Amino acid sequence: MDFKKFVRDVNDFPKQGVVFKDITPLLKNPEALQKANEAMLQLLDSQKIDYVVGMESRGFFFAPMLAARLQAGFIPVRKNGKLPHDTITASYSLEYGDDTLEMHTDSISKGDRVLIHDDVLATGGTARAVCDMVEKLGGEVVQCVFLLEIKALKGEEKLNGFKVTSLMEY
Amino acid sequence: MDFKKFVRDVNDFPKQGVVFKDITPLLKNPEALQKANEAMLQLLDSQKIDYVVGMESRGFFFAPMLAARLQAGFIPVRKNGKLPHDTITASYSLEYGDDTLEMHTDSISKGDRVLIHDDVLATGGTARAVCDMVEKLGGEVVQCVFLLEIKALKGEEKLNGFKVTSLMEY
Repeated sequence: MDFKKFVRDVNDFPKQGVVFKDITPLLKNPEALQKANEAMLQLLDSQKIDYVVGMESRGFFFAPMLAARLQAGFIPVRKNGKLPHDTITASYSLEYGDDTLEMHTDSISKGDRVLIHDDVLATGGTARAVCDMVEKLGGEVVQCVFLLEIKALKGEEKLNGFKVTSLMEY
Repeated sequence: MDFKKFVRDVNDFPKQGVVFKDITPLLKNPEALQKANEAMLQLLDSQKIDYVVGMESRGFFFAPMLAARLQAGFIPVRKNGKLPHDTITASYSLEYGDDTLEMHTDSISKGDRVLIHDDVLATGGTARAVCDMVEKLGGEVVQCVFLLEIKALKGEEKLNGFKVTSLMEY
């Protein structure tokens, strides 16, 4: 399936000069929604995953679906102050500014095999912060899988040492 | 399955005196994650749904999964300024303050059969705003399905005229 057909370029969003990759047409198409999930599963080296970790907000679209198909659990990474229980925190810089992310400290245990998912790999700042949090909690980052990757922003360099795959590359 | 076993009470979150229903243990348990999705599907009067609309952020956990199982598309409702294309906007009051939500104007067309999903039905302010936006775009709100409902906050009253069901009631 040509998934790129369902990704819309929006100029000057969120700021002047940026071409935003809008995945809402892909989410809206029933066949593309399902097939994109299946296609990401095909990109995995191993289906032996304990938890899929997805990043707020757009990482939540596919991470629980990936988890369900892998018979794994889903763990949300959220923006600062959104998770109610004890958390660990990571601050990081991203394409359009700075941000802080949190995970519940009881979300991952030593030796858990973890798949990281977000919709877009841009500079890799978010994903790197999440990989570091997962490892800090004792988890093993088995792979990072993205719906799409903006190659020019070199996110893979920031994820050096981790297995990184993307369904679409730009 | 006793889904309530996987919902954790967190006292004084997000503010003093509130008991927050934390669903992260349910999301983390592979069996509970899948079965909660299937159980919400069982609550639907009709499986003939064109689009599942889910609210940022926690509505994103299940809405795409529900959509995939219904052979429907998924449409995100997002916080102000997050959607890149033309939007319609709804302002509403919710349990802990005020907020503004947006949907893409091209997300729903006249006659589309729409299922609304969020994780929690509290006062119903969010869900009502979303139902109104869907109808403004010409869609038919077939049903609203929630993972859990806080009965004391009487959200169903605010959703008067809509079919409302919840997997868990508190």
